[in-house]
Amino acid sequence: MAGIFITVEGPDGAGKTSLIQTLVPILEQQLKNELIITREPGGIPISEEIRQVILDPKNTTMDDRTEALLYAAARRQHLVEKVLPALAANKVVLCDRFVDSSLAYQGAGRGLGMDEVASINNFVTAGKLPDLTLYLDIESEKGLARIQKGRQTSEIDRLDQESLAFHKKVRGGYLSLVAEHQERIEVIDASLELSQVVEASLSVIKKRYPTIFK
Amino acid sequence: MAGIFITVEGPDGAGKTSLIQTLVPILEQQLKNELIITREPGGIPISEEIRQVILDPKNTTMDDRTEALLYAAARRQHLVEKVLPALAANKVVLCDRFVDSSLAYQGAGRGLGMDEVASINNFVTAGKLPDLTLYLDIESEKGLARIQKGRQTSEIDRLDQESLAFHKKVRGGYLSLVAEHQERIEVIDASLELSQVVEASLSVIKKRYPTIFK
Repeated sequence: MAGIFITVEGPDGAGKTSLIQTLVPILEQQLKNELIITREPGGIPISEEIRQVILDPKNTTMDDRTEALLYAAARRQHLVEKVLPALAANKVVLCDRFVDSSLAYQGAGRGLGMDEVASINNFVTAGKLPDLTLYLDIESEKGLARIQKGRQTSEIDRLDQESLAFHKKVRGGYLSLVAEHQERIEVIDASLELSQVVEASLSVIKKRYPTIFK
Repeated sequence: MAGIFITVEGPDGAGKTSLIQTLVPILEQQLKNELIITREPGGIPISEEIRQVILDPKNTTMDDRTEALLYAAARRQHLVEKVLPALAANKVVLCDRFVDSSLAYQGAGRGLGMDEVASINNFVTAGKLPDLTLYLDIESEKGLARIQKGRQTSEIDRLDQESLAFHKKVRGGYLSLVAEHQERIEVIDASLELSQVVEASLSVIKKRYPTIFK
């Protein structure tokens, strides 16, 4: 048996970080397989360098297509150096954002077209998609309200400054991905209490992969 | 009339730099339109930053697909910030390497597949291809011999250290592009004396675009 590749997706403020932080100690207790938690750039030096270029506040002239290509490059290196070796070693990989984020943010949010961004991301994955994606769904107004409460102004990066309209387009992108990949993507209602979001996520993983639990 | 976009292509050691250096003062004298000479990253800060990531000698674990995506990102930003504005201003743009280099080097040379790399580069260009490409053709043995004579060891980057076999694959990639795009790509015999290469190149440009000359 090979490892299992699980991604967590959702618009900003959906509560991905809180879910992962709460879910991880539970999974570590209950899983037979070793668990790896990662997110791009994931401590991969090449991907970290690429990320610095993307998030550099002085790069105000960055074209949307340039940005999409840079995200794709960072994703590819993270996949090759971290995710694929862990899966080969029979580990469960829990990854905070993956290709669906590019399709939702660049394809739908920035209007590059989901099909066009998909063609780049097919080059990135070379066929390796997540086994399961937990999509945390939240209304854009609620998601943005959470971000503004939870973070210091100094921490807000370029993406967080985008408008509500942008966030709605991102959510729309995610929802169309759900429609297209119902076998892979499970929708979790992220407007619920954290404990309920954790419970729902755990339940989905257990139902799909009962044999990896003790 | 919009500007004219001319690219110069060829494997390492074909003599692109010498051709361009000699051709430029001649064109500057003879052209009615203003001439812009550029090459990626072309002084575009974002593209320069990306280039640093690609050429950083400590990035030895860089995946071939990551590299192809980074070249594509640098190319996109250079196109948007430098080439397209110059063409819109009715200038003649002479560009040292463009998408054909990616197809030949990453697609054919590194074996990623020319069709796969083409799909990324279609995303980069969004339909904007060169009007004319001067392809300097040279046998790989001759090209490599020229590189070794002409450069200091300290100047030789990662790509220059690749094998003769790699250079042969690159040339094969270029020749298949010529076969596919005979209307756009003109083959110049780069084994000739520099003066003859310059003469042949100038003659091609004059024949195609007589009205831009004084």
